[in-house]
Formats: sequence, C-alpha cells, structure tokens
Amino acid sequence: MPELRKDPIVGRWVIISTDRAKRPTDFAREGVKPKGGFCPFCYGNESKTPPEILAFRPSPNGAQPVAKDSPGWTVRVVPNKFPALGIEGSLNRQAEGMFDKMNGIGAHEVIIETPDHNATLATMAVKRVEDVLWAFRDRILDLRQDKRFKYILIFKNHGEAAGASLEHPHSQLIALPILPRRVVEEFEGAKQYFLYKERCVFCDIVHQEIDNGVRVVAENEHFLTLAPYAPRFPFETWILPKRHESAFEHSSSQMYAALARSLKDLLSRAERVLDNPAYNLVIHTSPVQDPQQDHYHWHMEFMPKLTKTAGFEWGTGFYINPTPPEEAARFLREAVVPAETSQTATV
Amino acid sequence: MPELRKDPIVGRWVIISTDRAKRPTDFAREGVKPKGGFCPFCYGNESKTPPEILAFRPSPNGAQPVAKDSPGWTVRVVPNKFPALGIEGSLNRQAEGMFDKMNGIGAHEVIIETPDHNATLATMAVKRVEDVLWAFRDRILDLRQDKRFKYILIFKNHGEAAGASLEHPHSQLIALPILPRRVVEEFEGAKQYFLYKERCVFCDIVHQEIDNGVRVVAENEHFLTLAPYAPRFPFETWILPKRHESAFEHSSSQMYAALARSLKDLLSRAERVLDNPAYNLVIHTSPVQDPQQDHYHWHMEFMPKLTKTAGFEWGTGFYINPTPPEEAARFLREAVVPAETSQTATV
Repeated sequence: MPELRKDPIVGRWVIISTDRAKRPTDFAREGVKPKGGFCPFCYGNESKTPPEILAFRPSPNGAQPVAKDSPGWTVRVVPNKFPALGIEGSLNRQAEGMFDKMNGIGAHEVIIETPDHNATLATMAVKRVEDVLWAFRDRILDLRQDKRFKYILIFKNHGEAAGASLEHPHSQLIALPILPRRVVEEFEGAKQYFLYKERCVFCDIVHQEIDNGVRVVAENEHFLTLAPYAPRFPFETWILPKRHESAFEHSSSQMYAALARSLKDLLSRAERVLDNPAYNLVIHTSPVQDPQQDHYHWHMEFMPKLTKTAGFEWGTGFYINPTPPEEAARFLREAVVPAETSQTATV
Repeated sequence: MPELRKDPIVGRWVIISTDRAKRPTDFAREGVKPKGGFCPFCYGNESKTPPEILAFRPSPNGAQPVAKDSPGWTVRVVPNKFPALGIEGSLNRQAEGMFDKMNGIGAHEVIIETPDHNATLATMAVKRVEDVLWAFRDRILDLRQDKRFKYILIFKNHGEAAGASLEHPHSQLIALPILPRRVVEEFEGAKQYFLYKERCVFCDIVHQEIDNGVRVVAENEHFLTLAPYAPRFPFETWILPKRHESAFEHSSSQMYAALARSLKDLLSRAERVLDNPAYNLVIHTSPVQDPQQDHYHWHMEFMPKLTKTAGFEWGTGFYINPTPPEEAARFLREAVVPAETSQTATV
C-alpha cells in the first residue's frame, strides 16, 4: 500500500511508493528506452493489461457483441498496472512522531486513446478525439460515486521528456482522497476574485482576451484557445469554455464535440510550430463532490516541454519564460492546420 | 526590460523576457550541445564575461596585487550576460486591463566556483567549497543594501537535465523585488507551526530525525544532512544547521567551514550512489530585509534529477516519489566517500 505523507512545513502531500521502491540503479538514464518492441496497448495484447473498466466498441448493425478484453475497441480504459495509489481500504490518518500520513487510497487508470500505436490526438479524426473526452467523462461520473474521492485529475504526458513511459497514445486518471494544493490555490484564488468582483475571473479573462485578441490562438462557437497573460512555460496554452461551466463532466454533449475540435486544432498547431514537442495536458475542473461553482470555470492547460525546470523555479515557484505569450499566440494562430479542424481566430 | 506578470487566478508572478524572446526554432532539442569548445568561465577568457563584481585572488606575501578581470582567482562573481531581470529602474506597478505587471527589476549574477573546468563541488578541496559559500554571503550582504530587493535566491543547476547551460562549475544568484510564492508558503507554514507549538518546525525536525536516525544521511558538529519525511523527488536531501539560525548570511565563520564539509560530503555520496546525477541545489533563507525570525530556519535543498516532472505534478502540485526517504538515506549513508569529508552518521 503506497503512503501519503505530508510535508510538515508547507503542508504539501506526496505519494511515497513503498511497495515497488526504486533503487539507485533503477533510474534509467535518458534515451535508453528502446523504440518499437512489445506494446501492451495494441490490439491483440489486451490480456497484458489488467481487465478493462470501460471500452467503446462500435458494433455495426447485426454484428455480434464483442467480448471484453479483445480487439475491436476504439477507446479502452484499464487500471494502471503499476498504480500510484491503491483502490482498497479506508483513509486511516495517522501520526508518525511530529509527522502526518495516511494510506495511499485512490484510483489510477489509463485511457488508451486509440488502437493505432502511431496516431496522436493531433492526427486522429475529430470524432475519435471526442470519444476520448467521453471516456474521461464516463470515468469521472462513475468514480465520483465513491465518496472517499475528493478530486479526479485527468492528464496526459506525451513524449519521454514530458514523463511518458509508453509511446502508445494514452491519458491517465488519478482519483485522490484529498484536494491537492494547487487545486485549492486555484480554487481559492478564483473565489477571492469572485468575492471582490462578483464575477468569475475566467469569464472575465475570456471576454477581455476576445476583445483584445493578441493572445488568442483560435476559437469556435463554444471554446476559446489562448496564451495566458502570465504563462509559466513558453507556448503554454489554455482552452476554456466561453460560457461559465464549473465542471468538465457536466458539459452538454455538443460541448464535447466542440472541445474535440479545439483540442485537435491546438495540438495540430503545436505539432506544426514546435516540431512535435513533448507536452503535458491537464484538465482543471471542480472537486467531484462539489461540482457547481459560480467562481470556478473548468479548462484545459497545455504545456509543451521546451525548457528545463531548474533551481530557480524549484526554489521560488517563480518561472522565467523566454517567450512572451503574445508571440507564442501569433505563431500558433498563424500556423496552417488541416481543414477539418480549422477555426477562424478573431484577429 | 523584462516584465513581471501576475497570474490573475493564483497570484503567481512570472518573468517574461521581452527583449530576447525565444522563437520556436530557438528551443534546441536535448543533447544538441557540443562538448568541449570555448568556455567563458575558464582562465584567460575573463574579458568574455561582463566585468567581475567580486573575485577571491590569493596573493602570496610580497606578490603584486593582480588586476581585475585577469586570471589568478579561485572564485569569481560576474553579472549574468543574459540576465532574467534588469538592475536599473524602479518597480513601476501597472495594470494592463484586468491584469497586473511591473518592471522586471532585479539582479542576476553568476558565481564561478573554480577555475577548473572539470572540477565539481564534490571533487574540489573543502577550503575551495568554503570560498564559494563565502562568495554567496558577500554578495547577499552587498545586494541587500538595495532596498528594492525583497528576496535573494542562490541556486545551482548541475548538468544539462537540471537546466545548466554551461558545463563549467557555477552557481547563480537572483535578487527579486517581491517575495516569491513558495518562499511565502514555507515562511507562513513555519509561522503557523510556531504559533501553535511555540517552537521552530525545523528545530523539531532536526531533533526528531537525530533521535530516530532512519532518515539521517550524515552529520557534523554544526549540520545535519537528512532525507526529508515527505520528499517530492527520489533522493531529495536537505542540509540544516543543527542550532536555530534564520538567515544563511548571518552564520558565524566556523559554520561556513562545517557547511562546506557537509555539502562536499553529500555531493560525494550522491555522485557515488547515483552515478554523477544532474541536480538542483537551492538555499532557502529568510527575506533579506527581515532576516531574524524565531520561526524560520535556513537550509539547503538538494534535488537530483532522476525522474521527469509530469502532468500529474503540474496539475496538482502533488508529487509521486518512487523511493521512500528511509531507503534513499540508507543508500547515501552507506556510500563510501573520501576521508577528507567523512562524517559519522548517528545510525
């Protein structure tokens, strides 16, 4: 059972893997991962993952329903074979001398986005990207019934430099028994703004950025893609619903179709401009047990891995960004992308 | 002039380099840096850096004093040729629509630790490591006279994976016009503990860890080297003064000699156990205008770069650490290091 431990100074929780501890020689040097070889996420290897939790299998009229854990799926969700948290047990908060810990309870799932090992969210059909978003939603709606879980994080690590350990396109879901620190910060920050202005800060950003235009990358009827005013990383980009919505899983169905277009569009632009960068993609949404909020507005954050986070950033939480967001937005806005996703930016 | 911009949601400041903006093609892929070649930090190339701010030049009895910006130094401090912040001007806080910004005022200096291009803090003589610590102190004492500066961060990026852009051993100093967010968090966290317990949380950690022993790496008369209870990263290690001291620059002179031994010892152990890892080293100390604190205790944090920070960490500020600190401490404690620095651990 992994352990959750709390830093006694800043109150930050960390997950300590106590079962399969990594010894010094287990930290492979960069670039040692072999390309090609066996992939547990490809068709025919379904038995090499834990049994599937969810899969979308289009069944043509009259076709036999396909058995679980067999090929034919378009999206497949499985438990992570090496979970950071364990699903069984109760929280069991305890002291250890002056320190605080609890059992590492949670869920850790993998969303296999496509059977095509070499596809990416930028090259997949919009409808297939939409399927991935529906899988995210379905998993959140299922897991939030478990009242032990306070927050469900959906994220994607693309490319080895961004922390991906398998090439095959996939996202991950982690359900947590506590509200993580950065989530609380964002939530509380937005609440302060709401208390002062009686408006959602994200709604204000959407309106101001559409008016101003210089940081807009693209937009469609439901979503705005923009470079934030104070980005931590070069080419950091957010996708926000234009109208106020506080929880990803409560969007209406036409929203997922529009988000799929926005997401594929952004990733296509980034692939073009930044030459297929490694990246992290994170959904920021409301706590699952408290999803309706006037002050909070869900969104996606895209962070290409172009620079190394160094001592200054670790020491201060203060970032040095060598690319002004206005320039990043212009490069992304002017990129030529396939017609299927093209959207007209406002400037 | 770089710009400081504030994220309107979480209040995090970022430094945006507006002068020498990086375009997409400027982000070099990993591993493209040529080895060898010209080094501006080696003897004879002093004219290739901005003029020195400080240098230690041992002058034997009767020898002529050596000219500035010429060889013969053991430690040399110069302004960063590509500073993240500019030294001239006033803060000038301004609104930009709903957003907040100010001029990027600050100092950015490089501490060249040795003339020997191939040395490291682990291989240098203890006396030379101590010189580096004295240079840190002298620069802080000088810069804090400038009342625009609220915080001075000293850090080191060793190895390309940790963000170093030059091989020659060096540290960096950044003086900031605001208190960075993580510093405030640590400071406020320690204050909360003090208000509740009327003791310094770091002093409590020192006592408990010495009693307990399992997370101790090494100690000498003045410093304790330990794996923290809730480390973010595998083999994260802290060096703390055993007695309460709130500011690095206010230590007494015998403290720097002892710290030099502790630091060389830790880096030698890490080099042995982790095969010369890339790492970040950061000094956590009190704000320079307010250096005497009952609740805050300066220390050094060492973070080897063994894993990649991925979407989960960026989304939550919550870390997954695959190596329990008790095991990391044991590996480091049991490493065989040169006699010059050897210290007996308590367990």
